[in-house]
Amino acid sequence: MTLRNGKEFLMIPGPTNVPEEVLRAMHRPAVDIYEGPLLETTNYCLKSLKTLFRTEGKTYIYAANGHGAWDSALCNTLKRGDKILVLESGRFALGWGEAASVSGLDVEILPGAWDKGVDPMRLEERLRQDSTHEIAAVLVVQVDTASGVWNDIATLRKAIDAANHPALYMVDTIASLGCMPFEMDAWGVDVALTGSQKGLMCPPGLSFVAAGPKADKAHETADLRTNYTDWTFRQGAEHYQKYCGTPPEHLLFAFHKALDLIFAEGLENVWKRHELLGEATRRAVAKWSKKGAVEFNISDPNARSNSVTVLRLANGDAAALRAFTQETCGVTVGGTIGELSGKGIRIAHMGHVNAVMLLGTLAAIELGFDKLAIPHCKGGVQAAIDYLAAMV
Amino acid sequence: MTLRNGKEFLMIPGPTNVPEEVLRAMHRPAVDIYEGPLLETTNYCLKSLKTLFRTEGKTYIYAANGHGAWDSALCNTLKRGDKILVLESGRFALGWGEAASVSGLDVEILPGAWDKGVDPMRLEERLRQDSTHEIAAVLVVQVDTASGVWNDIATLRKAIDAANHPALYMVDTIASLGCMPFEMDAWGVDVALTGSQKGLMCPPGLSFVAAGPKADKAHETADLRTNYTDWTFRQGAEHYQKYCGTPPEHLLFAFHKALDLIFAEGLENVWKRHELLGEATRRAVAKWSKKGAVEFNISDPNARSNSVTVLRLANGDAAALRAFTQETCGVTVGGTIGELSGKGIRIAHMGHVNAVMLLGTLAAIELGFDKLAIPHCKGGVQAAIDYLAAMV
Amino acid sequence: MTLRNGKEFLMIPGPTNVPEEVLRAMHRPAVDIYEGPLLETTNYCLKSLKTLFRTEGKTYIYAANGHGAWDSALCNTLKRGDKILVLESGRFALGWGEAASVSGLDVEILPGAWDKGVDPMRLEERLRQDSTHEIAAVLVVQVDTASGVWNDIATLRKAIDAANHPALYMVDTIASLGCMPFEMDAWGVDVALTGSQKGLMCPPGLSFVAAGPKADKAHETADLRTNYTDWTFRQGAEHYQKYCGTPPEHLLFAFHKALDLIFAEGLENVWKRHELLGEATRRAVAKWSKKGAVEFNISDPNARSNSVTVLRLANGDAAALRAFTQETCGVTVGGTIGELSGKGIRIAHMGHVNAVMLLGTLAAIELGFDKLAIPHCKGGVQAAIDYLAAMV
Amino acid sequence: MTLRNGKEFLMIPGPTNVPEEVLRAMHRPAVDIYEGPLLETTNYCLKSLKTLFRTEGKTYIYAANGHGAWDSALCNTLKRGDKILVLESGRFALGWGEAASVSGLDVEILPGAWDKGVDPMRLEERLRQDSTHEIAAVLVVQVDTASGVWNDIATLRKAIDAANHPALYMVDTIASLGCMPFEMDAWGVDVALTGSQKGLMCPPGLSFVAAGPKADKAHETADLRTNYTDWTFRQGAEHYQKYCGTPPEHLLFAFHKALDLIFAEGLENVWKRHELLGEATRRAVAKWSKKGAVEFNISDPNARSNSVTVLRLANGDAAALRAFTQETCGVTVGGTIGELSGKGIRIAHMGHVNAVMLLGTLAAIELGFDKLAIPHCKGGVQAAIDYLAAMV
Repeated sequence: MTLRNGKEFLMIPGPTNVPEEVLRAMHRPAVDIYEGPLLETTNYCLKSLKTLFRTEGKTYIYAANGHGAWDSALCNTLKRGDKILVLESGRFALGWGEAASVSGLDVEILPGAWDKGVDPMRLEERLRQDSTHEIAAVLVVQVDTASGVWNDIATLRKAIDAANHPALYMVDTIASLGCMPFEMDAWGVDVALTGSQKGLMCPPGLSFVAAGPKADKAHETADLRTNYTDWTFRQGAEHYQKYCGTPPEHLLFAFHKALDLIFAEGLENVWKRHELLGEATRRAVAKWSKKGAVEFNISDPNARSNSVTVLRLANGDAAALRAFTQETCGVTVGGTIGELSGKGIRIAHMGHVNAVMLLGTLAAIELGFDKLAIPHCKGGVQAAIDYLAAMV
Repeated sequence: MTLRNGKEFLMIPGPTNVPEEVLRAMHRPAVDIYEGPLLETTNYCLKSLKTLFRTEGKTYIYAANGHGAWDSALCNTLKRGDKILVLESGRFALGWGEAASVSGLDVEILPGAWDKGVDPMRLEERLRQDSTHEIAAVLVVQVDTASGVWNDIATLRKAIDAANHPALYMVDTIASLGCMPFEMDAWGVDVALTGSQKGLMCPPGLSFVAAGPKADKAHETADLRTNYTDWTFRQGAEHYQKYCGTPPEHLLFAFHKALDLIFAEGLENVWKRHELLGEATRRAVAKWSKKGAVEFNISDPNARSNSVTVLRLANGDAAALRAFTQETCGVTVGGTIGELSGKGIRIAHMGHVNAVMLLGTLAAIELGFDKLAIPHCKGGVQAAIDYLAAMV
Repeated sequence: MTLRNGKEFLMIPGPTNVPEEVLRAMHRPAVDIYEGPLLETTNYCLKSLKTLFRTEGKTYIYAANGHGAWDSALCNTLKRGDKILVLESGRFALGWGEAASVSGLDVEILPGAWDKGVDPMRLEERLRQDSTHEIAAVLVVQVDTASGVWNDIATLRKAIDAANHPALYMVDTIASLGCMPFEMDAWGVDVALTGSQKGLMCPPGLSFVAAGPKADKAHETADLRTNYTDWTFRQGAEHYQKYCGTPPEHLLFAFHKALDLIFAEGLENVWKRHELLGEATRRAVAKWSKKGAVEFNISDPNARSNSVTVLRLANGDAAALRAFTQETCGVTVGGTIGELSGKGIRIAHMGHVNAVMLLGTLAAIELGFDKLAIPHCKGGVQAAIDYLAAMV
Repeated sequence: MTLRNGKEFLMIPGPTNVPEEVLRAMHRPAVDIYEGPLLETTNYCLKSLKTLFRTEGKTYIYAANGHGAWDSALCNTLKRGDKILVLESGRFALGWGEAASVSGLDVEILPGAWDKGVDPMRLEERLRQDSTHEIAAVLVVQVDTASGVWNDIATLRKAIDAANHPALYMVDTIASLGCMPFEMDAWGVDVALTGSQKGLMCPPGLSFVAAGPKADKAHETADLRTNYTDWTFRQGAEHYQKYCGTPPEHLLFAFHKALDLIFAEGLENVWKRHELLGEATRRAVAKWSKKGAVEFNISDPNARSNSVTVLRLANGDAAALRAFTQETCGVTVGGTIGELSGKGIRIAHMGHVNAVMLLGTLAAIELGFDKLAIPHCKGGVQAAIDYLAAMV
């Protein structure tokens, strides 16, 4: 018996639920790329990215996914053979490091774990050891969707400063921008990047890069540039140069509208909404995990992100649970990937998510625990309700 | 602080949540009305209505809302001055009776109440009294969205038969077709009607009428006909006659798609889904109402509909609760109307509704009770979860 | 060999090409009908109808097609058995008269022809004969899409006045409002009506009625009212009363947007656009008809409408021509109906039509004449181009 | 006076008119990227690309525009410092060469002209001179939208063979695939690439690359790879690897639908449609240019492409003409770029274009010539009509 037929929810850590308004904004004819309203859209988007990243730096829009933005950050600032230090805390910083290897960079991993954030002390220690400043860049993700971890970007900056190290500080905010506070300039980030399909509520296919003055300086001597990623070309006066070719118009129409929605709500309010929904989720999980087979992947409560919560399910019932919530209830929750593959679920609460969507999702999960006899402590949804009642 | 930004839910008893596929089906150019694919759409819709109404009778599609269908039922079968008997059990049968008065019919109301269904015994009794068979038609609604009542159409038919009365039996299924079982032919209904915007998941603007042989016979001598409602004209061979003028194409595209969705799920499965979601709602309400200010409007558990549940809130906090769930959580629940105006809420669970939407809505309501300090017994959502876990 | 694959054009006299913006406006969830933004939409639409009809009278919106509006005009103002005078000039005034017969009105036709407009002298003469003022209403269409005629509404009013006759003057502007000038109050029209799907560029399913003071007065004693058409009910304070039931929301969203488009262009500019495109069409037809088998249906040049041009094709090749333009070129032109059925084509130039659409359509028709060896004089498109070059 | 309000046409050489069906296919929620229907879409698209390119080689889909595909072709097959030979015939092969320079390739241009195709003899001659086989790759575009030229890819291949040269043969089919015949395998092309937004009728944002065995072999030792472009990674088993990260879902939904449309029409029929519409355009231009200020940019009739026709306007009235057709008629034709900037117009007839769109566009241009008193010979549209009447 299925109770699925209704609006389908996609509570996975990207792509996320695309607002009706954003989908509607894409449903229109193409327009000229050399003149007319598209030029204004470009200006608006490039400028708004500064607002989102909280930077005075330069911003770039790529017809590409987040992996394309990874290349952009690396190829525009580094030289073949440069050493980079990748801060492990899940899957994605490692992936970025692997991408760097393809471009001929020398990748060193600062070992971490899948259940906690990057340790600032270890970063400082490693950088102090690098007395010749071989390390050209430090790469980290703010939120890793594979583990659910949140890294404290400001504190990690302080570790770099404490080591008095000149490395470029590059941050992947793909799973956090538009969800949790990010202050590129205030926190001393040199290159930040993100994608369209998570907190920014758009279809996938766009990625965004912001570069501060130190990155601009490094760009001058970078020798890994490719035409498509090259910042210099994209700073040209012609409109098509902003995109190194034909602008991805429909995705830009979508992004424009998504920006409107974010600014209408207010960026701080967006962050606060994610904070409350994230904590409500954690209250539910904390309750469920009091008994039985459910536990947080991230052991340190301070390192749990507000955009995605990763659960481990001891008895391997993740697949059954996900099938149940999808096929019987109408909500798709994320499966775990990488070293957690098959061992848990990922509940995304990022982007276009409100209280009723989140509570409905938590209820569907608790219903699944019950139906599938997965050992858990009842009352998770109730705990989430109780928390929110006290906070809203 | 609002947690509203996400998909908006419309859990009111009509119009209901329109499926993405149905909206998409309307997003297309108009087509010719004299030839081409629209003719096939007409055939499909007219035939499928027989399946929905469970009848071998004739079916009609109106560019009109449900009130237009009311007129169609009356004007096509009755004569000026005819007496009709309206079975009270909420607001809408009375409204139908008022409509009949405008056309010059003599309307008698069989008194009922807002908290229970029509009493078959009283109907039988009244009809027995009508020894001269003055009453030309009996009008009833299967579900009244104002009260939340469900009337037992089959049993009421038996009461008519027991009185051996020849009156036409007319049933408004606007709030029930596609939600709860309806068997026009098996139950001896002469005229049934419904609208597009509730269980049938379409935008409002279409209504549908089915007429059995006894109604066809009455039609021959009816003298209230108007051109637009006239069944005879609509039985003509020309395509435009089916609609008495230009077909409402885009709404027909929508209806065609909605029918596809219903048949893909299976009509019985649709009914079952509504039954489980309706009962889950009632489990929550039953729990909440164990203490304090919340109670069912319909006192008789057997007379509560599977498409909408009406709650009374003793302390008049309905407006605050509705505002909270809408503005803070993202779900609009219905306000009460008519004699219940301002005294409660209406939770619709009709049409395109799945488990996660319903549970999220119930959670938002319980959150609202808590936040607004409306006295209630906690655990309503939990009760709904427990019920569904046992049933799915 | 087909050259069809591209945007499909619908150059038939209704429904017409729906603008992208209008379709997009419908692609959204339903909303509450008792409160919120829909109420503002209703006010805007009702008020804007006054602007379109050029009246200070009352306006009504029906979930219905134009035939429903016909009933509304009749049932709200007349009494059973009243005599009405129908002014023949094509198919649609006759149809309106047939509709009146169903309601029990006594219908007299003032005979006319399919190739010219109503003769004001004959109208005056007939009304003078009616010394007892039996005729309660005079019915006429401004443009008849079956014949392509345009009737001079202002001059016909003068004929009524010249006869000093008190009959209500009712005008069907379904195929002319938003295409050609119409001045309800200035021209002394008592009831005007139209539909959504022609000059107003919306999907079919809405119709509109405007009533002046004399009609309001007649309404007080009208005895043909039905609930759904009743103006009195629709003047009620409750929002749902404006629609006698659930508002046809999505069609209203569409209509709101279409009104925005019309007002953005300017109503007079819209008329002017239709005038130029209409005359360009006539220049092409005049050229083609210099030789061979093509001729105007309307013999009087002053009686040809700016919204649709009807051609007679002497050799019966209408079907082949229409198939050719549709299947080979991508444009559907209208077939003729009624007594012209199969004998010609109808080229609509109403609503959302620009120069390139019209010229492309004329070119496709001329291409069809050539391909199918239908005798004609070449240079029709050139004549249209020459005319427009002199006028724009 | 504007006659613009109607469907807007975009007759520029990319992006092109996106079919309704394609836009509609994008208007849907995002889906999971690890499982479910998206995997089937990926398979379908990758396989269909083989059909479009007419190859048994490997195909790749990039979230990127055509410039991204340029990089993919180069970075996956070449080594830093490799010499490439760029065959000039307009703007875009030169642009590809400039892109190659950014990656550190040694770019030599085989000089050509903007008014004719690449000369096979000169290519053969140059390659014969390269006795040490320094030239690693030959780059050419099949159609250059800046000049309107069509290069004979098969004949150029023969020139390479005649020189017995081992260089990789790379062809940009961005402005020709889905418009004109292309036979990757039969013609001995090693790498072919295209974009979504021209003949393939999709929004911009996707580009496609096909690689034959010789390119695969070169890939093994290529040292310009970046992670995002890397073919090896994209051949991985995981679904996300096909896109090196999150798949651009909505654009894929669009592309899937566009492929359906192409296959429904038949690829050869699509080519034939473009051939007829291209020749009809040339017939009009040939007529106009018999007198006055209008002429073809491409002097060699055999080198004019079927996807875009470039006109020179001697008196510099290009801007006025384009403004007129757009603002008065509703069709945007392309402006010229590069060394032709401001000196002409580009009439695109690629992708989703039918006879009525093309004839309407030609009529709008002829109207503009007339209105703006740009010297020309009348009868261009008539010539197009006459040609098509003989051919369809």
